Amino acid sequence: MLDQIHWLAAVTVLGVLEQAYFFLQVIYARRLFGISPPKISGPPEFERIFRAQVNSSEYFPIFLVLLWQAGLFFHQGLAAALGLLYLCGRYCYFMGYKTSSSARLTPMYFSAGVLWILTAVSALSILHFFLSHYVGLNILQLLTA
Amino acid sequence: MLDQIHWLAAVTVLGVLEQAYFFLQVIYARRLFGISPPKISGPPEFERIFRAQVNSSEYFPIFLVLLWQAGLFFHQGLAAALGLLYLCGRYCYFMGYKTSSSARLTPMYFSAGVLWILTAVSALSILHFFLSHYVGLNILQLLTA
Amino acid sequence: MLDQIHWLAAVTVLGVLEQAYFFLQVIYARRLFGISPPKISGPPEFERIFRAQVNSSEYFPIFLVLLWQAGLFFHQGLAAALGLLYLCGRYCYFMGYKTSSSARLTPMYFSAGVLWILTAVSALSILHFFLSHYVGLNILQLLTA
Repeated sequence: MLDQIHWLAAVTVLGVLEQAYFFLQVIYARRLFGISPPKISGPPEFERIFRAQVNSSEYFPIFLVLLWQAGLFFHQGLAAALGLLYLCGRYCYFMGYKTSSSARLTPMYFSAGVLWILTAVSALSILHFFLSHYVGLNILQLLTA
Repeated sequence: MLDQIHWLAAVTVLGVLEQAYFFLQVIYARRLFGISPPKISGPPEFERIFRAQVNSSEYFPIFLVLLWQAGLFFHQGLAAALGLLYLCGRYCYFMGYKTSSSARLTPMYFSAGVLWILTAVSALSILHFFLSHYVGLNILQLLTA
Repeated sequence: MLDQIHWLAAVTVLGVLEQAYFFLQVIYARRLFGISPPKISGPPEFERIFRAQVNSSEYFPIFLVLLWQAGLFFHQGLAAALGLLYLCGRYCYFMGYKTSSSARLTPMYFSAGVLWILTAVSALSILHFFLSHYVGLNILQLLTA
């Protein structure tokens, strides 16, 4: 069973390390700008780093779910490759947001695009599974026949 | 293996689409009220939409975990049906919160109720697994005997 | 298959119950200090409880992912034991943060330490899987030979 998920698991660990990096960046920013918890407001420089981390955290479960479903129902390698693209996009988003609000936009659209592709792959491959499981209709086979 | 999880996967994709819809609503509200990131405070109308999205995001991983555990340890179809109820409850919660703080309460209690049922189903079916696995005690069999 | 994940599932349900407890604490604090949603700012006593819940929610998906990957790729019992330590640490963190910002630090470092151990266990056991799967190199066997 593990050989069906090891690439997904590897990308997931990379994702966890990326999240850890974002958390550490917020801790450094708190020290730099002298903003102790529980405070979350401060100069725009701090708030941008803070919001970049919060936004990445909110998307993390959604990313993982799509990565694993696309990997299990369609193709592990493709899902893992898209996962790596997403993690790169997230890194650029974080670094861009740190600089300015507008510099976050391009990598934000890129990451969102990758997520939409993963969503489409998941949804279509699950739909394909339903059709072949309940109706006996194998679309992939029909297309390649 | 996939035929044990395809209903759970389908409900999960619907959940992801719902979360995407909530994120888009926040983006529209930011434009409407002219509140650019990283700012998160503004008129109550904006803050209600923003909080509705944040609250839904915080509950999303908990929902997914309960959905999948109830589905794997008890019954996939029942878990998926409860999952659909939860997603409906969340939609009504979001739409209610958009109107007023008090209009979020009824669907909030409904969603929370569904989550508690999923928690009970997960906990009891895992307990049942432990009892039959380690003690050899099959309660379901005893009850139906 | 379920006997490979029942301890992970049991710890996960405990984690969900802990998160539910944290959510309830925020609801009680909102009533106590008279802070109705969507407001999230108030006296430091309220903000500490609120931030303790938000922080625990942000870490919850990361914790779950590491718990399950360490359990699947290395050892279920060890992962579940580390998971219990993490949940204890989180409880002390929440209770500490409720009292004062500084009282959260020791359990915060403890929880973070447990997460780093889970990360290392996950990463190394996945690396080990890759090595034995693709290179045919079984390090554990070499070490014990």
